[in-house]
Amino acid sequence: MNYQKSVLPICQIIGYKNAGKTTLMEQLIGYFTSRQWKVGAIKHHGHGGEPDYQPGTDSQRHYEAGATISGVQGESQLQLTLRDDGSLENVLDFYRLLDLDMLFMEGYKKEDYPKIVILKDEKDVELLNLSNVIAVGLWNNEMRAFTKYPTFSMHKIEQSLSQLATVITTHLDFKC
Amino acid sequence: MNYQKSVLPICQIIGYKNAGKTTLMEQLIGYFTSRQWKVGAIKHHGHGGEPDYQPGTDSQRHYEAGATISGVQGESQLQLTLRDDGSLENVLDFYRLLDLDMLFMEGYKKEDYPKIVILKDEKDVELLNLSNVIAVGLWNNEMRAFTKYPTFSMHKIEQSLSQLATVITTHLDFKC
Repeated sequence: MNYQKSVLPICQIIGYKNAGKTTLMEQLIGYFTSRQWKVGAIKHHGHGGEPDYQPGTDSQRHYEAGATISGVQGESQLQLTLRDDGSLENVLDFYRLLDLDMLFMEGYKKEDYPKIVILKDEKDVELLNLSNVIAVGLWNNEMRAFTKYPTFSMHKIEQSLSQLATVITTHLDFKC
Repeated sequence: MNYQKSVLPICQIIGYKNAGKTTLMEQLIGYFTSRQWKVGAIKHHGHGGEPDYQPGTDSQRHYEAGATISGVQGESQLQLTLRDDGSLENVLDFYRLLDLDMLFMEGYKKEDYPKIVILKDEKDVELLNLSNVIAVGLWNNEMRAFTKYPTFSMHKIEQSLSQLATVITTHLDFKC
């Protein structure tokens, strides 16, 4: 069965553990969502293995019995567990089926999508060698010297959101 | 963006609390899955409100920040939380996007899809008035007298799976 998938503009948020990725994701998602964008989010489970779930729930039992997809519908949210081959492309294929305006991807630093990189310490500077960096978040303003990319302060994300949004929308591929 | 959705044959599993719906779902899902069918499963969260989730996890924070869909990718499973308008049709539209061979639906008794009804006590007999009943699971064999639909014993589901599968595939709409 063929279907046309939508083009899905993707922005990655990169940083080492506790750099503030999730906080930045929250702020950016909130910014675009409040402007009526339909935003998706994806992250990789940090510790290997499977994301936490509630073992023994009915939907887990359905999944463990072999269901390709198992879901529970609540009042305003649907929770799904899908068998996955572990490839990001498989996940993106799925997200592309939905009518999203953009996707924020926390992590997956080996991918090639436009990236906002967060530097916490000097040792994080190697992250600037990643492909397609479009902006850099800094906890220490002195580290501005390390990069020619546009920078913003991780202490003042909210004040930078508007400019960050401009950088993002400039770099992402928004073909209709 | 238009896309052709696949036809999704649906079988409902109906019964009151503790009637054995999830056990029957597990057995049927396992039966079809072991024969290489791609099977989906859906149930309604029983107590109102939202299904249990892990509050405070990164992906929940993404969701609470406004993401339409928030996901965590593990080694072999993808867990997603989607905003939902609470209608079953919205959920089914989503499942229809996937390449499934059939969907088992636990509950949703007001819907009109083919149903396997489980009777635990005599008071459950009113469930036989639902539309589109195709088979009846019984805990008490004497209750066979209450119905002219094909019956099977809930004590011996495994032995009945093959005939149940025939009943299901006969009644479901498997247009290609």
